[in-house]
Amino acid sequence: MLKQISDIVLEAGEIVKTGFNSNKNIKYKGEVDLVTEYDVKTEEFLKEKLQKLFPDFKIIGEESNNDTNEYPNENVIFIDPIDGTTNFVHGVPFVAVSVGVITEKEGKYGVVYNPILDELYSAETGMGAYCNGTQIKVSSTPSLINSLIATGFPYKKDNLPYLMKVLEQVLLHSRGIRRAGAASLDLCYTARGIYDLYYETRLKPWDMAGGLIIVREAGGIVTKLDGRYHEMDSDSLIASNGLLHVEFLNLLNEI
Amino acid sequence: MLKQISDIVLEAGEIVKTGFNSNKNIKYKGEVDLVTEYDVKTEEFLKEKLQKLFPDFKIIGEESNNDTNEYPNENVIFIDPIDGTTNFVHGVPFVAVSVGVITEKEGKYGVVYNPILDELYSAETGMGAYCNGTQIKVSSTPSLINSLIATGFPYKKDNLPYLMKVLEQVLLHSRGIRRAGAASLDLCYTARGIYDLYYETRLKPWDMAGGLIIVREAGGIVTKLDGRYHEMDSDSLIASNGLLHVEFLNLLNEI
Repeated sequence: MLKQISDIVLEAGEIVKTGFNSNKNIKYKGEVDLVTEYDVKTEEFLKEKLQKLFPDFKIIGEESNNDTNEYPNENVIFIDPIDGTTNFVHGVPFVAVSVGVITEKEGKYGVVYNPILDELYSAETGMGAYCNGTQIKVSSTPSLINSLIATGFPYKKDNLPYLMKVLEQVLLHSRGIRRAGAASLDLCYTARGIYDLYYETRLKPWDMAGGLIIVREAGGIVTKLDGRYHEMDSDSLIASNGLLHVEFLNLLNEI
Repeated sequence: MLKQISDIVLEAGEIVKTGFNSNKNIKYKGEVDLVTEYDVKTEEFLKEKLQKLFPDFKIIGEESNNDTNEYPNENVIFIDPIDGTTNFVHGVPFVAVSVGVITEKEGKYGVVYNPILDELYSAETGMGAYCNGTQIKVSSTPSLINSLIATGFPYKKDNLPYLMKVLEQVLLHSRGIRRAGAASLDLCYTARGIYDLYYETRLKPWDMAGGLIIVREAGGIVTKLDGRYHEMDSDSLIASNGLLHVEFLNLLNEI
């Protein structure tokens, strides 16, 4: 089944890649939240194909369900046709198609594909995580001062002063920060051991669903920013190699 | 001559790419400032080849001249064998070999190569800027609210509170921020119109020399953070498409 989902996501990636190399018609969801014709086209493609594969699942996509925080208590597939739309519009090669298949509120399959760099990340719960067919693992970095940390900033700016305080502490206590602009890929880079820890707030289920399954299957730990268990409708997350998790939570507690 | 420099940089890139896919022996310059055997090996290669091509030039490299802020009043070549060493060590595909050839304090040739993504940026003063042989131009984004902005954070943390204030204003007044971790590539992405503006402080000549020539030849404007003319020994810079420069300086002035 993971192979069939991956094939659909690879095909969706071709639509995204075509768009990446073309001129785009941009719409604005918010003042700085973008959507293009390719977001819509890719989501329609994914919905049609995945609904055939999973006829009894509810499919929730960024573009068609953007206003809701709906999290149905049933089998559900979260899709983000283009995670990193701002990157897509500007030409930064960090964009991804993200699909997460959830049964009974537990992740089952996660597939994230960056069609520009041709990196396919996939995982089935209990079966490990893979990048282009090779198994991946989180890093073994034991302390923040030797770690590379990723983050993102929300469109909504209400918690910005707090995020600036966090970032300042991260910069003082780590090897550096990266802000690439696509949550699903930040999770996959953490799964691959490139980043040692990734945190972000104000995320939506479709941003996270695919990547969460992948990072957990790669040996990563995921919690909310307060350290509690992360559920799909939690709007903040820390994903780490596990070794850094407590040190990072302690850093947050001092703010 | 630009072709000959480019060929040397491409060959140096092969050393870097080999290292990117290998285990690395890491040394620490500072607590979080890294250097690997590949930095040293690549710099030695570049120095030898470039000295033959430019026998009368002084060559200043990151690894052999790291302690000095020396800026000789003569013909000089600044080289950074691996810009983005932290990315190199962690596996983030934003690393570059950077070479800037300066005659009488004016940029003459700039070559920046990302061997992982196979992107070769080059420029000769007065002759335009190119990426893999195709001419590149800065963006035409007219206002900050529609702009994508890049920045970096220094190893030295003395001005961090100020940088946090700047970042907060940037996040409030732009489409978003990117922090990829290699100054030379941030300049090249600005030259290519992917980023609309890039700013950073505490830079060294070898971080900037190649990319500065490229971004100026792509139609970009470069100043210091105070808006004054940028020279190679200035330690802060704003590189933009020109259209955003005054709006950004005004934003800084309000902090």
